[in-house]
Amino acid sequence: MTLTLPAAEAARELVEPVLREAVGRLDPLSARVARYHFGWADDQGAASGGGKALRPTLAVLSGRAAGADVERCLPAAAAVELVHAFSLLHDDVMDDDPVRRHRPAAWTVFGRPHALLCGNALLTLAGELLLEQGTPGGAAAARALNEAVLSLVAGQALDLEFQDRDDVTREECLRMSRCKTASLLACACSIGVTAAGGPARLADALAAFGTEAGLAFQLADDLLGIWGSTEATGKPVLADLRTRKKSLPVVAALTGPTAAGRRLAELLARPEPLTESDLRDAARLVEEAGGRAWAEAEAGRRLDAATRCLDDADLPADVRAEFLHLARFIASRDH
Amino acid sequence: MTLTLPAAEAARELVEPVLREAVGRLDPLSARVARYHFGWADDQGAASGGGKALRPTLAVLSGRAAGADVERCLPAAAAVELVHAFSLLHDDVMDDDPVRRHRPAAWTVFGRPHALLCGNALLTLAGELLLEQGTPGGAAAARALNEAVLSLVAGQALDLEFQDRDDVTREECLRMSRCKTASLLACACSIGVTAAGGPARLADALAAFGTEAGLAFQLADDLLGIWGSTEATGKPVLADLRTRKKSLPVVAALTGPTAAGRRLAELLARPEPLTESDLRDAARLVEEAGGRAWAEAEAGRRLDAATRCLDDADLPADVRAEFLHLARFIASRDH
Repeated sequence: MTLTLPAAEAARELVEPVLREAVGRLDPLSARVARYHFGWADDQGAASGGGKALRPTLAVLSGRAAGADVERCLPAAAAVELVHAFSLLHDDVMDDDPVRRHRPAAWTVFGRPHALLCGNALLTLAGELLLEQGTPGGAAAARALNEAVLSLVAGQALDLEFQDRDDVTREECLRMSRCKTASLLACACSIGVTAAGGPARLADALAAFGTEAGLAFQLADDLLGIWGSTEATGKPVLADLRTRKKSLPVVAALTGPTAAGRRLAELLARPEPLTESDLRDAARLVEEAGGRAWAEAEAGRRLDAATRCLDDADLPADVRAEFLHLARFIASRDH
Repeated sequence: MTLTLPAAEAARELVEPVLREAVGRLDPLSARVARYHFGWADDQGAASGGGKALRPTLAVLSGRAAGADVERCLPAAAAVELVHAFSLLHDDVMDDDPVRRHRPAAWTVFGRPHALLCGNALLTLAGELLLEQGTPGGAAAARALNEAVLSLVAGQALDLEFQDRDDVTREECLRMSRCKTASLLACACSIGVTAAGGPARLADALAAFGTEAGLAFQLADDLLGIWGSTEATGKPVLADLRTRKKSLPVVAALTGPTAAGRRLAELLARPEPLTESDLRDAARLVEEAGGRAWAEAEAGRRLDAATRCLDDADLPADVRAEFLHLARFIASRDH
């Protein structure tokens, strides 16, 4: 899943040197894990892919919304990406997830402790990049990032709790997505304004935009987790059904009043591993129970809400157009 | 191991409400783990023991060194304790250590993911307590804490690396202890000055004091890990030999030129589990090889160096006396 927008390409090129310099400050073991995770090196030291730089792109746009020079937005953009990396490194350990960005997850290469330590180091570096600016905006941005991290933690805690429950509601599932996915995107969309000392009203409007766009993103991601190709997701087809993840389309199907939903619940409650045929049945039942249609419609509603949030912000026309473009891009199901 | 000094009692009573308020901001699952870890509740919710509040005591003293009101030092004192809690929660997961403060470690009660998430939340709260002061001193203190956290990460990474190596030198082992133990104590000893906007020279002198006192502390702790009673350590006797930990007395014994050191190396290299008799032999060999005497002498040297650092700081007589008392207390082997 590579973002091919010009804005993202530009942000990635600008932010990567800041990230590399920051990672260079770490102890050698954590730096090695970080370089692997960011795709700058494989476990033997050679370079490979890399992330899609969505959050840095949003952070740079956010700074531009407040009239800040792009250069001045880069520490905030890098900080958000460092927090994202921290959360991926830790979540993969907690979820036992062996694949990240089409490659073996860092913990499978370096061991769980070193992946966790690297995550802790990146989280700490994120705050440091903001505070070392020595500006009130930098400190305010660090606080905004703290709030997002506490939200990420709450979201991951809920996600883990939901795995052991069979009565998760759609509202609970949306709340979890708001914490786990939307909060950091909301922070990315507003942190440039905050770091530049821009108006709180603008930061709030962009954070609200980021929350709605983030939910649309999660809905799209959950749809991909069932119906996406391996090429698009870097995971086996039907990946989320294999792990019986309580994703939004699945929960919508399970909590609806349909016979298909009840059959899906029975299927997912079976103690034995699901066969390929079971998985295809499960995907069909999610669709028959209306889970797919609801998730697609809800993603559209969230995208509309995000667009309305942009109307509340007094944005330069080019910045508004880019925010909108990005929101549509991440909520589309074919990236 | 409970600190029974009046200063520590006072600091614990003053800091605990700040810690409780901070923990009360967390998501319910992380808050539950934190309350258990701090000894405010067992896994059913009832209260039990608690930590020894060494770091908050040092932080409050540090503030007093800069002439700050005790009340104004409490966020910094709480922040250091939160970082300490974060590192214990994570290290116990990474080290597979099932006991903490005479009780089952949090991860054995709530599972590894929730212990990790709680640690992340506490680390984030620590920075937030400092930044929400909205003062330049608060931001500077947050940066000092970031530096200590990066050092903790580096120390834990080295500690893990050393487990797989049989050629660790005494200098490497001291470096690891400086990162893993002394850095946060150095931060505790100086953060009150920094948070109060006191002179950098005073903060530096107290950080140097904390580094030396921290090494003395680690040496004392390593001696307890071999010769301490279960009552003193909360762990089985000979605990560090059971896990073949490369503690300072062991590394000193292994790297010396003695026959006892060579016999110790052979014993610890055996693939099979060590019997109680093996463990007693190992303790005797550490002593015969000079590991115990070196560690005791080195602790004394570090304590002397710590005392000299206090002379570099222009401290009120009562504050100086309390710092010295604390350093002697933590470096003594019978606490």
